[in-house]
Amino acid sequence: MAHRAELIAVGTELLLGNIANLDAQILSEKLAELGIDVLYHTVVGDNPARLRQALELARTRVDVILTTGGLGPTYDDLTKQTICEVFGRKNVLHPELESWLRALFADRGRPMTENNLQQAYLPENCTVFHNQNGTAPGCAFCEDGVHVLMLPGPPHECELMFRTGAEAYLRALSHEVIASHTLRIYGKGESEIEALLHDRIVNMTNPTVAPYAKSDECMLRVTAKASSPEAAEQLLAPAVAEVMGVVGEWVYGVDVDNLETVCLDLLKSRSLTLSTAESCTGGLIAKRLTDISGASAAFLGGVVSYTNGVKNHVLNVSQSILDEYGAVSEPTARAMAEGVRALTGSDYALAVTGLAGPDGDDRGNPVGLVFVALAGPDGTAVRECRFGKRTREHIRQQTANTAFDMLRRKLQ
Amino acid sequence: MAHRAELIAVGTELLLGNIANLDAQILSEKLAELGIDVLYHTVVGDNPARLRQALELARTRVDVILTTGGLGPTYDDLTKQTICEVFGRKNVLHPELESWLRALFADRGRPMTENNLQQAYLPENCTVFHNQNGTAPGCAFCEDGVHVLMLPGPPHECELMFRTGAEAYLRALSHEVIASHTLRIYGKGESEIEALLHDRIVNMTNPTVAPYAKSDECMLRVTAKASSPEAAEQLLAPAVAEVMGVVGEWVYGVDVDNLETVCLDLLKSRSLTLSTAESCTGGLIAKRLTDISGASAAFLGGVVSYTNGVKNHVLNVSQSILDEYGAVSEPTARAMAEGVRALTGSDYALAVTGLAGPDGDDRGNPVGLVFVALAGPDGTAVRECRFGKRTREHIRQQTANTAFDMLRRKLQ
Repeated sequence: MAHRAELIAVGTELLLGNIANLDAQILSEKLAELGIDVLYHTVVGDNPARLRQALELARTRVDVILTTGGLGPTYDDLTKQTICEVFGRKNVLHPELESWLRALFADRGRPMTENNLQQAYLPENCTVFHNQNGTAPGCAFCEDGVHVLMLPGPPHECELMFRTGAEAYLRALSHEVIASHTLRIYGKGESEIEALLHDRIVNMTNPTVAPYAKSDECMLRVTAKASSPEAAEQLLAPAVAEVMGVVGEWVYGVDVDNLETVCLDLLKSRSLTLSTAESCTGGLIAKRLTDISGASAAFLGGVVSYTNGVKNHVLNVSQSILDEYGAVSEPTARAMAEGVRALTGSDYALAVTGLAGPDGDDRGNPVGLVFVALAGPDGTAVRECRFGKRTREHIRQQTANTAFDMLRRKLQ
Repeated sequence: MAHRAELIAVGTELLLGNIANLDAQILSEKLAELGIDVLYHTVVGDNPARLRQALELARTRVDVILTTGGLGPTYDDLTKQTICEVFGRKNVLHPELESWLRALFADRGRPMTENNLQQAYLPENCTVFHNQNGTAPGCAFCEDGVHVLMLPGPPHECELMFRTGAEAYLRALSHEVIASHTLRIYGKGESEIEALLHDRIVNMTNPTVAPYAKSDECMLRVTAKASSPEAAEQLLAPAVAEVMGVVGEWVYGVDVDNLETVCLDLLKSRSLTLSTAESCTGGLIAKRLTDISGASAAFLGGVVSYTNGVKNHVLNVSQSILDEYGAVSEPTARAMAEGVRALTGSDYALAVTGLAGPDGDDRGNPVGLVFVALAGPDGTAVRECRFGKRTREHIRQQTANTAFDMLRRKLQ
């Protein structure tokens, strides 16, 4: 029988609306992948009495409790003490965590105030989850048939600790293996993809196929349950092939992180180099490429030409092009790509210029108009995009996605 | 006495992690402004038994219940029926809502399927909240001293309905106002700030001061309750001044969005310009500046010099500096900043070079070593940072924060 889970987030900042409960979303998605049913999310403040009440209720209705938040060094971080009281465990100093903490502060050259030592206390006889993004470790234990897992509140700490610690703990609770492949799609929306696949999706039970909208793109997750990873894979392979037969044109990768990773891998495998020239994205394309460690093997660098002066002086876009066609134009995008390619000596160069909003330009171009250029050994191609009057963030991300998609289609 | 509220969100998509509970954040923030204490957030799926249980519990512990979701036309929209059962009210057709719905569909030229009529049913004798962004109206009623408000799930519908309907309903319940100021801090951690302020914080009741860790920085929120906004402000001003007296050195702004906004505002107010040269951050600093619309008034552009070739050819960092000191060094950071300042003609230039990891370099420099340079009319300053072996993302964000903090300290 499937395990049933409740997520309890602890933090007055959630109840004040300072932040959204992103941990609940992150963990719910991951628990669903593990085949664990999440039945409730609960949020309480930094208030031991209400946390205690929430824990007492949760233990009566689920067998997996995940808490987020309240593990830090300050006086309002009370999750561990309260859980220990409810479940009758001692909160004890873990010497190896104290050593780790002291080394961490020494490494950063910062004094460790004594309240930080609280973070080396965890329930006795627990499984420790190390925090690779912060100073508060997490942990798990089982009492009376209820598994209690404690994770830190900041989403980047919570997510990483789940992947590096909690996931294996939870996976070991089940004898069933759940495996999945994720097809990453760019250029078609969730509802279009679902319409194309609808008849197949509704009739599948194991494996299942589910579309998800994920920020500015879409993905399809094919999931199988079986007694072993190998058996799951045997179920998955034909299902993935069937889905690819329908939507493969828009699939840029299977089980890949994102478009930029696919681009870098393609470039590296052929010993090719890339440079960028960015106007409306203002560094976002270069930033996304360099989010990936090892990017320097293919990415040489780029220019953020946020003003016409930089386009002209650094990228060598001629003043006559800027005067005649304007900064947001096909000829300017082309000249930017060719300019940065010449400047850096890269094999390929991506350039973007457009209007991310909220305002249009003085030539009457609308918000969302963007030109994306790809220059390479066999010439330069330019794509005109009209993303419409969306948020600045959306237009910038879609511009970067389009640039990466042009490059991966060229190289694939 | 202040009213106490619980938010109950209804929707299996929340428990699957398909979406985050943004309604809870939106409503919590607005309730705090009205002086209503939010004590719990609860999420259940489209499951009448669990919703019923959540409602029965909520009515024992709060006097204001706000539900979000489950008001739509499909079979799994069960919020109204369940609430009516729990609170002993009839769910009745509101003829004026039926007319409104039929007119709405006619206006859109779409046939109205009969399941849509469900949306014209609301508890008898309730206050109706009209939906200006969708087809599901909301409502409020009071039973046994408990106020129950139902709002739709999609955040843009929920937020608008709160502002246009629910807010006035709730405001009429209370005579108290809550106001706050947020001090944004860079360069000191949450625990250090708390240690500095601890004695003051624990003794304050109105206003209160609370520290929060927020991604890679820290903030202090000073909050007051009073009978009017003016009276709240009179309580806040001396408390903010007292806190600033202790930690003001690290406060980069009050009620501001982030460091880069402060930098751009300082530059614009003095008609100064900025350019950037980025190695380890790979475009992140430029990206963060250009996240802000209107950045081009001060930010000219920059160079992402991810390889020594670009540092040398584009930024004019001499080959002898690169050979003698290496890419990650004080002289290289200095030459990058001066190089991009000369290239773009900006008043100020920020440059960063360092090791974001996961690997060190072949000179034995450790991960987390970063040099940040600020070149300006009166010379160039370089700061050496050691962020330790943290994630690539953390080191890159902290590098950008340090660069912005150097600039704002120079200009402030």
